Amino acid sequence: MTAAPALTLHHHPHSRSAGARVMLEELGVDYRIELVNLHAGEQRRPEFLALNPLGKLPTLVDGDTVVTEQVAIYLHLADRFPEAGLAPAIGDSARGSYLRWMVYYASCFEPAVVDRAQKHEPAEPMVSPYRDFDSMLAALEAQLARGPWMLGDRFSAADVLWGTALAWTTQFGLVPKSEVIERYIERAKARPGFQRAAAKDAELLATA
Amino acid sequence: MTAAPALTLHHHPHSRSAGARVMLEELGVDYRIELVNLHAGEQRRPEFLALNPLGKLPTLVDGDTVVTEQVAIYLHLADRFPEAGLAPAIGDSARGSYLRWMVYYASCFEPAVVDRAQKHEPAEPMVSPYRDFDSMLAALEAQLARGPWMLGDRFSAADVLWGTALAWTTQFGLVPKSEVIERYIERAKARPGFQRAAAKDAELLATA
Repeated sequence: MTAAPALTLHHHPHSRSAGARVMLEELGVDYRIELVNLHAGEQRRPEFLALNPLGKLPTLVDGDTVVTEQVAIYLHLADRFPEAGLAPAIGDSARGSYLRWMVYYASCFEPAVVDRAQKHEPAEPMVSPYRDFDSMLAALEAQLARGPWMLGDRFSAADVLWGTALAWTTQFGLVPKSEVIERYIERAKARPGFQRAAAKDAELLATA
Repeated sequence: MTAAPALTLHHHPHSRSAGARVMLEELGVDYRIELVNLHAGEQRRPEFLALNPLGKLPTLVDGDTVVTEQVAIYLHLADRFPEAGLAPAIGDSARGSYLRWMVYYASCFEPAVVDRAQKHEPAEPMVSPYRDFDSMLAALEAQLARGPWMLGDRFSAADVLWGTALAWTTQFGLVPKSEVIERYIERAKARPGFQRAAAKDAELLATA
């Protein structure tokens, strides 16, 4: 009898959890998928809302701990499995930059993309968390242009996050394509973890 | 001759950087303040935009590393000075919950507060990062109600973040007051680090 994996990802391929599955594949760890069929409204089931009252994916259960929020899940997993080398360790000079660009996704990129999609102007400069869409994107592209990865030569959880996010936001026209962004997405999609996650998600959708 | 402190906080008391100063005071470490007078538009100076192209405070310079985004700065500082005990260590079972509530501030709370202040409806449920304002606040209050701190008995960087954020957002009417929130703010404001930061910020504003 084998022990059940300690990690359960509440997941649907058509959600913010697509990248969390890539993280797990890049880490090469054992995990279990609990499919939450968003199209059938399963994110509103009381059992799921007990884990995450906002009804959002991804939601990760790691032993007794529930971790919600995409960026928190990546930060947690990358540090929990240091042998995969997906986060600069505490004390590494790249750690601050890693945290900066991880949080930038949640604090700047998502609000800017959502406002733009909703045709909402950003709040006044003192209030807006991202200044304006073009400034937000220019700062991100300047960092990506240094490449090949967000932290330079070193692939990290930041690239799982940004590779996934830029792929779907450019695909849906929420973020304009550019040479820098398109080459970055190509590099990310060529990674073995991205490919394994895409294959497994396709299979999941085909059999669900 | 004493060495210059390695930590420089680009700061203004009337900004998101108020809590970053509390963090530094709670850690009890040496740091230097670089006042960025927002009211005079100094966040638009080229020297500052070179550090943070979004012109936002707080911005922390730690040696050669620039860390932006409030939540990233807290995460970075709490781990960099573990002896202060402001973050559960990697491997501690409270770490996942700590990361969840740190990121929740950036991914859910700020977008919800900004949308509400701008009188913008949240995006549709599949897109909105916070579902709706009331759900976002109810989840937060349920966690705070377990108290006395965000992680239970243990004061952490999450309380520096939330103590500061709830104090100013309730003060400006951006978040409705409740018994749970008011008692939590009182507990936070009674902490020595909050008191030292408030006194130093008052002095800074008086002499600037």
